[in-house]
Amino acid sequence: MKPVNLLLTNALVLTMDEKLHQYEPGAVAVRGDSILAVGAEAEMRAEYSAAQVFDCGGKVLMPGLVNAHTHAAMTLLRGLADDLRLDVWLMGYVMPVEREFVSPDFVQLGTRLACAELIRSGVTCFADMYYFEEEVAKATAEAGLRAVCSQTVLKFPTPDAASYEDSLAAARDFIQRWKGHALIEPSVAPHAPYTCTPEILRATAQLAVEFDVPLHTHLSETALEVENMRKASGMPVIPYVRKQGLLDAKVLAAHCVHVDEGEIRTLLHANAGVAHNPSSNLKLASGFAPVQKMLEVGLNVGIGTDGAASNNDLDMFEEIRLAAFVAKAVSNDPTAVPAATALSMATRLGAAAMHLGALTGSLEPGKRADLILVDLAPVHNAPSFRREAHNAYAQIVYASKATDVTDVMVNGKWLMRDRQLLTLNEAELLLAAQEYARHIDTFLIEREQSILSKLVALGGSTEAESFEVQVKVKLADPAAVQEALCRPEVKIIYQRHYHQHDNYFIFSDPSQGRLRYREDESIGAKGEVVSVRARLTLLGPAREGDFAHDVLLSRSRYLAPAANSLRFYREYFTPASVVPIDKVRLRWLVNFRDTEFYVNLDRFETPNLGNYLEIKSRTWSRKDAEHKAQLATELIILLGGSLKKTVTQDYIEIVAQH
Amino acid sequence: MKPVNLLLTNALVLTMDEKLHQYEPGAVAVRGDSILAVGAEAEMRAEYSAAQVFDCGGKVLMPGLVNAHTHAAMTLLRGLADDLRLDVWLMGYVMPVEREFVSPDFVQLGTRLACAELIRSGVTCFADMYYFEEEVAKATAEAGLRAVCSQTVLKFPTPDAASYEDSLAAARDFIQRWKGHALIEPSVAPHAPYTCTPEILRATAQLAVEFDVPLHTHLSETALEVENMRKASGMPVIPYVRKQGLLDAKVLAAHCVHVDEGEIRTLLHANAGVAHNPSSNLKLASGFAPVQKMLEVGLNVGIGTDGAASNNDLDMFEEIRLAAFVAKAVSNDPTAVPAATALSMATRLGAAAMHLGALTGSLEPGKRADLILVDLAPVHNAPSFRREAHNAYAQIVYASKATDVTDVMVNGKWLMRDRQLLTLNEAELLLAAQEYARHIDTFLIEREQSILSKLVALGGSTEAESFEVQVKVKLADPAAVQEALCRPEVKIIYQRHYHQHDNYFIFSDPSQGRLRYREDESIGAKGEVVSVRARLTLLGPAREGDFAHDVLLSRSRYLAPAANSLRFYREYFTPASVVPIDKVRLRWLVNFRDTEFYVNLDRFETPNLGNYLEIKSRTWSRKDAEHKAQLATELIILLGGSLKKTVTQDYIEIVAQH
Repeated sequence: MKPVNLLLTNALVLTMDEKLHQYEPGAVAVRGDSILAVGAEAEMRAEYSAAQVFDCGGKVLMPGLVNAHTHAAMTLLRGLADDLRLDVWLMGYVMPVEREFVSPDFVQLGTRLACAELIRSGVTCFADMYYFEEEVAKATAEAGLRAVCSQTVLKFPTPDAASYEDSLAAARDFIQRWKGHALIEPSVAPHAPYTCTPEILRATAQLAVEFDVPLHTHLSETALEVENMRKASGMPVIPYVRKQGLLDAKVLAAHCVHVDEGEIRTLLHANAGVAHNPSSNLKLASGFAPVQKMLEVGLNVGIGTDGAASNNDLDMFEEIRLAAFVAKAVSNDPTAVPAATALSMATRLGAAAMHLGALTGSLEPGKRADLILVDLAPVHNAPSFRREAHNAYAQIVYASKATDVTDVMVNGKWLMRDRQLLTLNEAELLLAAQEYARHIDTFLIEREQSILSKLVALGGSTEAESFEVQVKVKLADPAAVQEALCRPEVKIIYQRHYHQHDNYFIFSDPSQGRLRYREDESIGAKGEVVSVRARLTLLGPAREGDFAHDVLLSRSRYLAPAANSLRFYREYFTPASVVPIDKVRLRWLVNFRDTEFYVNLDRFETPNLGNYLEIKSRTWSRKDAEHKAQLATELIILLGGSLKKTVTQDYIEIVAQH
Repeated sequence: MKPVNLLLTNALVLTMDEKLHQYEPGAVAVRGDSILAVGAEAEMRAEYSAAQVFDCGGKVLMPGLVNAHTHAAMTLLRGLADDLRLDVWLMGYVMPVEREFVSPDFVQLGTRLACAELIRSGVTCFADMYYFEEEVAKATAEAGLRAVCSQTVLKFPTPDAASYEDSLAAARDFIQRWKGHALIEPSVAPHAPYTCTPEILRATAQLAVEFDVPLHTHLSETALEVENMRKASGMPVIPYVRKQGLLDAKVLAAHCVHVDEGEIRTLLHANAGVAHNPSSNLKLASGFAPVQKMLEVGLNVGIGTDGAASNNDLDMFEEIRLAAFVAKAVSNDPTAVPAATALSMATRLGAAAMHLGALTGSLEPGKRADLILVDLAPVHNAPSFRREAHNAYAQIVYASKATDVTDVMVNGKWLMRDRQLLTLNEAELLLAAQEYARHIDTFLIEREQSILSKLVALGGSTEAESFEVQVKVKLADPAAVQEALCRPEVKIIYQRHYHQHDNYFIFSDPSQGRLRYREDESIGAKGEVVSVRARLTLLGPAREGDFAHDVLLSRSRYLAPAANSLRFYREYFTPASVVPIDKVRLRWLVNFRDTEFYVNLDRFETPNLGNYLEIKSRTWSRKDAEHKAQLATELIILLGGSLKKTVTQDYIEIVAQH
């Protein structure tokens, strides 16, 4: 009789090894942190004398689930904002909130909250990617879970680094200090090809190779990403990252939704692992990953939940079921990705995808004792057919729930017994998490109260408030203006020719002002479009003052380059209505009596409002404004405008009346 | 102060009414079986004096979920067989098991098991379709749930009726007796257009109209159904059923996966309800229903789980989430079917689709008190953002689980309190269900032990065992045979010309024999294909005896028309390999010395094996066989065959060696 610490008996043992051995009743012998033997209960009892015998009560005993891709700390942002397009969700909500709130404390708490949910739902091992990854590692090790912890590197400043050089240095330091930990495999995460420079991809791959640790990244998540990559580099994403040397590392690639057969083979030859994230891909409408093809060629495809901010939970039972469901629906073949395959993805294949296949993912002698008990007694699991080996997998995959997990062991240590967490205090976590949610809600409520603060939250402002003196007249003969500009009193500094496509966002509260999204097409000498520039301007709600002859003082409250699409801003600001205006503008910067003025000669195309002449000048003081108002009047007369035809309304007001 | 029986307080009340009113803290006043008022707690406390005040402890109080399409009793078949194509699953497993096991007792038990799961997961109302619907109604009423119970009518014999006339009579009787019940709305269910005759569709519609009850059916579930309908009737499914008068009734149509915009409008004009079944449609690879379009035009689209045999659970939380997920993924738009819409589908819209909108589906004064409490305390729901009304719906739809439901009330009566079922004994149900599963497993194990019994299980056999005397020779000159057949000793009774496409299923256990799937193309005088016939033959494992000159006694164990596709049989019988053989056969039935023989002149096409002459005759006794063996030898010589070239192998054995 060989001595062991623990013998788990009276279980339906699903080893999830490559041959899918099952034992009923089966037993597992644990010595220290590892599995010594797995087999039929009678034989195991005859062979091993156990310090402790644990009766599993007829439950399913199987390897713990492997969540191959998540951002654990983002559990604190679960339900922050939903049913939004990816860019609105990410740039409008998640990133502003992360800029404001993500700190070592946030990451610690978020990770512990995630660990509580992961343990409860039978996960024993996960792959994480976030900021302050040191805190993720600490919290995870304390909770007793196994994880690949990947320090994120981005080309932008992040909550934990002012530059990517800082991130890289932090990643190296993190890897050096955690390498060899019993539970934590440190790793580096170049976020994605479109958020990293080629230098970052190369440097992170070299770092991962140097320390022989996994490299965790997002690849080919959306069709747009692939399209942009093709435009920019003439190839799709996988060949591009291979060119940067990324595949020299032990890669764990999340998503791989839009990859072709050649790319799948490239990943296979590089021994890269793939993390399939069905909920996230469905919820964000990213597309359907070719999971069946990847499995057919022999890729290690695991299953991940992605972050709880985009899922919105860490429930691997749901993901496993979806992996099977979606593969069937997309291939139009209900035999695709059968239950045993889906469950293998969530255990053995997932561990292999994370490059931890030697350590965990199945119940086999020599692997770590990472295991769970699943109770099939709840009514939603009844009855149990046991005609074929397949029945048990189908039951777990298609009927069982995360809440059926009763006991969880990692590295030979119990983390949950009879649904009681042993390493985390849930009540404390829930209180602290709710405190964060309240602060974040307050922050967002304040922000959402004004269009201006929503604008500022996006970041990237170039200018805040400015004042302008302006006068505008309707013109019968625009050609006369161009002639008049040749007169000696007017010195032309430069001339521009634009085709301006404006969209005015109108809000139900007029005190919020109006937001203008303008695309300026700069037109060259031959009528060709030389360049396009998009800008966002928040216009003051009303005139700030006026002078003689309808000269106005107006206020432009905010001006920024519009880095995102019109659609993004429409969904982010949710205006009551959007009014498009198209016009051709000839614009001059002139010097008139030692003062600079902009002269705009506008011809409206949509709607057809005719021609207008506008004189504008920036101003900084009341006195300056009065002076410029007088000069503007003189200039407008000089250019052939009639003071009897002045217009005090903005173009958008004219259009609204039209 | 107005008196009420019960005031539910201290809740986040989601009314799910059309305007999605929310109250926090909110309260609901119940009098008898109905809701008297819903509102802010303070106002409600001021207005109503309650015999009992129930503190909801800050949980979500919302209308019970509406499962708009299921087959409750099939819960007993959960996990019976999975990852199979629809026809293999249905005709190979479900229907044989139903023929054997479905009885009033089966239906009673299955329905009660389903009710336990439904109540636990927050369902208060469901639409059922099955056999012995009277038993469904009784079991449901006893469990205290609300349901539309639809008696199935099919053109085939069913477990509860020998003919559709019997089903119709039973449906009429059932409706008459249950009409007006407080919980049960009786109904009739013509199963589907492809399983019903036009007469059945008309008769069921008339019955439903006569009693003003809903008519429940499956429409446009698969692309194949629509394709077949177009071929058969020149139109898709919805126009076809309208033509049969089906839409005169209050229709509840399950699936509607393959419907175009015109059909959607037809359904809308008929005020038909639709039950969307995302899990079932994914798992069976039926396709993606155009849910967003249906909602846009204003159809009442509910959500159903379908039966647990094809889902494999009755978890509406999962279905709601999937309805939102799938709509986003398919439309490539993450803003499609947002959380509030998905939850409305599972409550108000589902009740309307079932034509019970006046009774249930939202918390509104006058509706029945059908309501549930959902606990947001479990860690997978944390934290709670409450910035916008939308947050609460997103939390329920994207994060909450069925197991978060703690309390359920239907018609003013508690069915579950603090996760304890009050109307059902789960332990008893589980034992009885497991007993059924054991019997069914035994039945299937026995059946699966032999290819023959799997064949018999399919039904439709025409012949069992038969014995044949046969002799076969390889030919150099086939033309000589045709000449010899003109000799006076041989009387030709008839001649046939076939193109035979065979597929031999080879099993790893040779004692099982071989199964041949043969398509006989009968060739006419001009070489045209006159008819095609597919047959299935189970061939004996080895020769049964032999005579002089290699004349064999062979056994054909089974012969049946092959009603299903080659693909079906391949997936049903799962042979180790499949070998195709194509040949042209000239076949004569001849009289030779007062004995009938078949003469087959075979020319092989795939693989190219040359020409063979076969003489065969049925036999019934050893003595008769000996006599025929002698005659067969004479005949083969007469026809120019050489006894030196006899072949004792079957064609498949020759091919296997080839």
